[in-house]
Amino acid sequence: MSVSMQFNHKRLQSDFNALATIGATAEGGVNRPALSPAHLEARAWYAAQVKQAGLALQIDGAGNHSALLRSPNPSAPTLLLGSHLDSVPEGGRYDGALGVVAALEVLRSIQEAGLNLPVHLEAIDFTDEEGTLVGFIGSGALAGTLTPGDLQNPRGGREALLAGLTRAGLTEDGLFTARRDPATLAGYLELHIEQGPWLYDSGVDIGVVSGIVGIASFRLAFSGRANHAGTTPMAARRDAGLGAAAFILAARQLVLDNFPGCVANVGALRLEPGAFNIIPGRAELALECRAVDPAELDRLQTSLLERAQREAESFGLGLEVSALGQHAPAPMSQLAQQAIQEAAAELGLSSQSMPSGAGHDAQNLAPLCPTGMVFIPSVDGISHSPHETSRWDDCINGANVLLGAALRLAGSSDCA
Amino acid sequence: MSVSMQFNHKRLQSDFNALATIGATAEGGVNRPALSPAHLEARAWYAAQVKQAGLALQIDGAGNHSALLRSPNPSAPTLLLGSHLDSVPEGGRYDGALGVVAALEVLRSIQEAGLNLPVHLEAIDFTDEEGTLVGFIGSGALAGTLTPGDLQNPRGGREALLAGLTRAGLTEDGLFTARRDPATLAGYLELHIEQGPWLYDSGVDIGVVSGIVGIASFRLAFSGRANHAGTTPMAARRDAGLGAAAFILAARQLVLDNFPGCVANVGALRLEPGAFNIIPGRAELALECRAVDPAELDRLQTSLLERAQREAESFGLGLEVSALGQHAPAPMSQLAQQAIQEAAAELGLSSQSMPSGAGHDAQNLAPLCPTGMVFIPSVDGISHSPHETSRWDDCINGANVLLGAALRLAGSSDCA
Repeated sequence: MSVSMQFNHKRLQSDFNALATIGATAEGGVNRPALSPAHLEARAWYAAQVKQAGLALQIDGAGNHSALLRSPNPSAPTLLLGSHLDSVPEGGRYDGALGVVAALEVLRSIQEAGLNLPVHLEAIDFTDEEGTLVGFIGSGALAGTLTPGDLQNPRGGREALLAGLTRAGLTEDGLFTARRDPATLAGYLELHIEQGPWLYDSGVDIGVVSGIVGIASFRLAFSGRANHAGTTPMAARRDAGLGAAAFILAARQLVLDNFPGCVANVGALRLEPGAFNIIPGRAELALECRAVDPAELDRLQTSLLERAQREAESFGLGLEVSALGQHAPAPMSQLAQQAIQEAAAELGLSSQSMPSGAGHDAQNLAPLCPTGMVFIPSVDGISHSPHETSRWDDCINGANVLLGAALRLAGSSDCA
Repeated sequence: MSVSMQFNHKRLQSDFNALATIGATAEGGVNRPALSPAHLEARAWYAAQVKQAGLALQIDGAGNHSALLRSPNPSAPTLLLGSHLDSVPEGGRYDGALGVVAALEVLRSIQEAGLNLPVHLEAIDFTDEEGTLVGFIGSGALAGTLTPGDLQNPRGGREALLAGLTRAGLTEDGLFTARRDPATLAGYLELHIEQGPWLYDSGVDIGVVSGIVGIASFRLAFSGRANHAGTTPMAARRDAGLGAAAFILAARQLVLDNFPGCVANVGALRLEPGAFNIIPGRAELALECRAVDPAELDRLQTSLLERAQREAESFGLGLEVSALGQHAPAPMSQLAQQAIQEAAAELGLSSQSMPSGAGHDAQNLAPLCPTGMVFIPSVDGISHSPHETSRWDDCINGANVLLGAALRLAGSSDCA
């Protein structure tokens, strides 16, 4: 079979632009947190595109939205292509969305070419990739790694999760029905922006992801004593904000000094009760850390939590730590990496093997079936921001590599 | 006239307890931010008590609620007694509420004793003492120091202010109609808890306030660049949270080292966009500082803002500073201080002159008429907290001193 087929660039761009208007922000990004009204609107738009293309639409119990292009062989395994339509709060237009519209375009192109494949093709939009609610609800449910316990103390809070599920017409029990038998899966390929500066700075067209970084996230609460900010002498205060502030600075220094290549982030912080004239009695923060090596991830989180405890003690504060889940580092399959590298080479594009510093749904699929990711350059490495952008030529390159890699993986589907 | 009259302790306690149920929190405090539904419920309760006591009810354009006991002389000046029924978020039961119920009880006692005074007596509940919205809306409007500009960028945000005014049936223009001619005022006396540890620790019954601390408040916004928390190397980040954290620690150290007796507080902080996996692009914090001496207050705020600028620069961040108003230090009148001291002595109570580290409506009245404040001990100095408490015997002492001082000041009303 020929693998040099290319697709309808204009239709891809038109889809991408249409999607960027849903949840659009004044700053030029999108605000589509998982299961928010804007996210559900994007999903409704996707469902309409799928039907308009004459493809079958499938929505599973976890809310994952899929377009299906069936193989003539009914018992063929399924090759998944996809990404996600949700965004971080005030995020960018490319993260996730590009991978979904490219996957759909691959199915439409193959359908229009009248190609019969030995695999079913499925272009899937996964639920809650960004973790606004739980993190990887859709791919975790599909892979069978999501547990009822994950839903009890989720990153976004239990109330937000329940409100989102209700809004989307989903139920907690229903999520678990999305699980697939790995024997039915031929593989998973995902096109995504790099979200870092490496490809853009080095001028390489395509990143062939070798593995996905592991992530551990925590909620830390420093507790002191709320009191009057005018009448309580400075030295007599138990100000919870001081512990949080000292930890934020110390965490950065600790990673810089002892964990090269790793990262840590305090992305949210709330002081309570939160008034000008009240000393904060409680400071609650959101901590996340990442490492490619499993043992280093363990050492990193242990060091960070020890430091938090020490800072709390130094200001006479209490500390509560809630572990909010951990994603182990996930290597990509050799077969998928090879398919991506070959597809890039055939298109005359330069490529380079590289790890992913960001988590992706691919990490949940990797243990089940041959899984790979295609990265394209992010301008200035900016992502999770309204200023996130990629050159349109790079987007087209990435989508063409996805198509080529999918055809290659489909051709070797008995590997599944 | 006899000044040894005392009042109905049980009725005072019953009023205090009834009021503590309005906006009551599970932790034992009250949550009655200015013009919130709970605050308006407390005001409705107060209005009902006033009418039930056969006193005249007066509500001015700033929402101040007053009970009036008129002198037989219609052209007599008015001696104000009062405090406030609003609370900080998740505040305590004593702050403000005690002064209002005590003022009402003074009026009822004098009315029941059939005493004719050469002044009108007014028990007033001032609007927004705690500054949840603007700060001192009620006493500022009455004194004529509130300006339309104060309403444009208020501490609590413009939207919250407009929502509160609407809820209370007030208008921006109407606020300014509450202004009083100083010639009509015989004085102002306020009973309040100390909100600090000094009286409680030293075993003194009554604090005679010599002056009220000056306060300056600011909103500081550190701006960096929101970016992906997994793919952006630590050293390449412009994390707005780092600037805020460094400033929180530096502000405390600066006050401890260079401004003994002064205080500074960062009571609120928000990281934006506020997700686990996004580097904060913006960190907005609420800063307040206080000093008894006007020149020292100037030096303190200048030093704090310089430090904020330096911390922003050291992390490659921008800084925006919004000044949210300043209250100059306010000395109390000698006449009022003497009346309070004599009333305490006649009751056999120990008293001590002391400054107030907290702001109070009295600071707005001080330039207009003889103004004084009666402090009673706060257990462990705790205030602006659900754990705020005062011994009930101290509350009765304070109310009796308020009564005695009011009768003294009324007797010398031609001073006004």
